[in-house]
Amino acid sequence: MTAAALIEIWRGDLLESLHHGHAVVCGPQGAELVWGEAGAVVFPRSSCKMVQALPLIESGAAEAAGLGLRHLALSCASHSGAALHVGAVGEWLTGLGMGEADLRCGSHLPFDKVEATRLTCSDEKPCQLHNNCSGKHAGFLTLNRHLKGGAEYVEIDHPVQRAVRAAFEEVTGETSPGWGVDGCSAPNFACTLEGLARAMQFFAAARPEGGLRAAAAARLIEAMTAFPELVAGENRACTKLMRATGGKVAVKTGAEGVFVAILPEQKRGIALKITDGASRASEAAITALLVHLGALAPDHPVVAQLLPPVSKNWRGLATGGMRLAKGFC
Amino acid sequence: MTAAALIEIWRGDLLESLHHGHAVVCGPQGAELVWGEAGAVVFPRSSCKMVQALPLIESGAAEAAGLGLRHLALSCASHSGAALHVGAVGEWLTGLGMGEADLRCGSHLPFDKVEATRLTCSDEKPCQLHNNCSGKHAGFLTLNRHLKGGAEYVEIDHPVQRAVRAAFEEVTGETSPGWGVDGCSAPNFACTLEGLARAMQFFAAARPEGGLRAAAAARLIEAMTAFPELVAGENRACTKLMRATGGKVAVKTGAEGVFVAILPEQKRGIALKITDGASRASEAAITALLVHLGALAPDHPVVAQLLPPVSKNWRGLATGGMRLAKGFC
Repeated sequence: MTAAALIEIWRGDLLESLHHGHAVVCGPQGAELVWGEAGAVVFPRSSCKMVQALPLIESGAAEAAGLGLRHLALSCASHSGAALHVGAVGEWLTGLGMGEADLRCGSHLPFDKVEATRLTCSDEKPCQLHNNCSGKHAGFLTLNRHLKGGAEYVEIDHPVQRAVRAAFEEVTGETSPGWGVDGCSAPNFACTLEGLARAMQFFAAARPEGGLRAAAAARLIEAMTAFPELVAGENRACTKLMRATGGKVAVKTGAEGVFVAILPEQKRGIALKITDGASRASEAAITALLVHLGALAPDHPVVAQLLPPVSKNWRGLATGGMRLAKGFC
Repeated sequence: MTAAALIEIWRGDLLESLHHGHAVVCGPQGAELVWGEAGAVVFPRSSCKMVQALPLIESGAAEAAGLGLRHLALSCASHSGAALHVGAVGEWLTGLGMGEADLRCGSHLPFDKVEATRLTCSDEKPCQLHNNCSGKHAGFLTLNRHLKGGAEYVEIDHPVQRAVRAAFEEVTGETSPGWGVDGCSAPNFACTLEGLARAMQFFAAARPEGGLRAAAAARLIEAMTAFPELVAGENRACTKLMRATGGKVAVKTGAEGVFVAILPEQKRGIALKITDGASRASEAAITALLVHLGALAPDHPVVAQLLPPVSKNWRGLATGGMRLAKGFC
């Protein structure tokens, strides 16, 4: 696959590093803008959590469990594991008559500095609730209780994952060419980048009155944009970008350089993958695309934060900066 | 510049991410092996600290200050800021009748987990001694005292940096096409990757009896290989690789995906740059090159640590692994 140069890292007057990738913008008629190859096969990783959450609503499980917008935002989140997130997911599981031990996502030190410091300095180990995917897994457990499946809900042939794969293949419009085990142990299905952008376009065009799936998609976007702090956390790109766009755009990052955006007003979906997997580049690229499509004001402070024209070192001296590669946006 | 595919990141049965770069192996007759472009212009960043330390010895400043191998190893280090490093650099400065305030490298939280945890949990701020470059700066201050230069030793036209540039251009065999301000505020001079590999080959061929510069270079390599824990720190690639090669090879990492190696027994020097700046790829690539040249046993545990054929997630499940791209090593 031939990737396009997207993000440049400069030092002094010389180009120091360069990030290549693929980006697709889909509208109602299909792909409108493409950099690199639309057919590049990618693992969406966490960028497709809203797709993985569709069966949770469509099955009636969410309504049966009395889930609100906060729960749905967490089901689409790669949260920071702050007290806010850990507490909310813990209460959610308690409401299901379950607990942390029912999760199958594993544990890692949270991204949130306050909570990470609290754990480190009290010599306390992080639990599965701290895992950035614990909200998605609480959603899986909610669906599983409704489907009466077995405890190992992350296995590829489990009813929960069969439902996820079906929804994923339907909204991407493709038969997944393969899958892998994600960091949180759930299956992650591959697709083309255009398929992922097509899925995001479906979410962008979805309206509550459009039927079961469209209503579910619209509800998830309503949840993400209503609670951006639950989808990621303070100082995280997703939260900053959704706040900066005033709730008019839903964005989601994925590991290994993936980022997607859903623009309901334009009925457009965006998907991009940085070939080398760098988050600094995927965050800069999605920022550039949102500005390019007029969904984010070029002078909004978040633009200079995620696409810094000037970078500084430990003493505050300017060392270089980030630039868009020629031909990108 | 056309980079070569070097390191692949796989998930399940699919390629998830890919790192491109340039790599050059130089022997006594010049470039012997090249992947990507030998003429690619790069910032060596911290990989050229042994070059920046040459004037410290050649000027007689090191001898006048009574520096030993430990000091010289620290002058070439990107250390972890562990108590071991902070204490040694602090004593060095005291011996010069100077202190932390004379440094111009700035402060950052150390890489060393024990020291970082101590600072965080005692709400203590890191000082300039914690900066991974503080040993290099202690070397600059030692040279500066000898040259009787002004206090701002990191300025581009300061006698210390003029001496560094001269040594850098002589061992790379090139006139530097430009420079930038490094993370530690010192000037970092650019060169071609072949020039950097040529400089490393000079170090590899240097012997104590070979004259002033050769003796200085040989002394620095003796210091790096004698004290690998001072050049980086526990669980760091440089320290692990130098221990794994039993002191027969000196290696040094540089920010933004640079890695160099010096092989005295083979009189060979290696320099590589990962285009996107990823350390995971530069560490894997230098490991592959050392194995390829017979300087590191393929079955040594460090190989599977830096070039893991199987990667596992938070629950210990295998998710994929790292592979060498077709045609690399």
